[in-house]
Amino acid sequence: MVELLATRLDNTFHALADPTRRAMLRSLSVQERSVGELAAPFEMSLAAASKHIKVLEKAGLVRREVKGRVHVCRLEAKPLSDVREWLRFYERFWGERVDALEALLRAEAPAAPRGKGRSR
Amino acid sequence: MVELLATRLDNTFHALADPTRRAMLRSLSVQERSVGELAAPFEMSLAAASKHIKVLEKAGLVRREVKGRVHVCRLEAKPLSDVREWLRFYERFWGERVDALEALLRAEAPAAPRGKGRSR
Repeated sequence: MVELLATRLDNTFHALADPTRRAMLRSLSVQERSVGELAAPFEMSLAAASKHIKVLEKAGLVRREVKGRVHVCRLEAKPLSDVREWLRFYERFWGERVDALEALLRAEAPAAPRGKGRSR
Repeated sequence: MVELLATRLDNTFHALADPTRRAMLRSLSVQERSVGELAAPFEMSLAAASKHIKVLEKAGLVRREVKGRVHVCRLEAKPLSDVREWLRFYERFWGERVDALEALLRAEAPAAPRGKGRSR
């Protein structure tokens, strides 16, 4: 089970490690698209676009459906929520950093004058 | 600027797409470690471990400091918070899915009896 999740995370992170694939996901966040429509904004062949889409499909980020003669791609967000869960553990670190900075700022300005209003 | 962020995200996602590197980050979340200590739990050479650590360094996830004769590695969480920010846009999708499910459940059980308490 843990093994399975690890492999899923490998595939998801690998799929996300490319700007074209991230742009494709963003495009699919607006609406479903055919492979041709997904490829259009990028200067690449349909074959190259299809390769990217396969990586996204393997990660479960895109589902492809055949509608008549057209392959329609749809965004599947579940793997992204798995990444979100994975990240949650590390949140304390950037949280701590901010807390430490705030504590430092408070410690450096302990005797701020009160009731003076804004001075220019 | 956007270009820079894209490259950073490429490096971060690439670094995270490997279970050994994710385990190394988890280990560094407990405390700083030497390269030897980081390599120890994995059945791999120091050279192989060092390669993984270089990928993590390139992504800015690990900082290596030379203390005397030892290279000490430390977790840097900033790139993870960038991933968190990148994910935020997609949150609506798993949020929507849950909302839609809840709406469906409410619609299917509109006339739930009130004040009956638990049956059996």
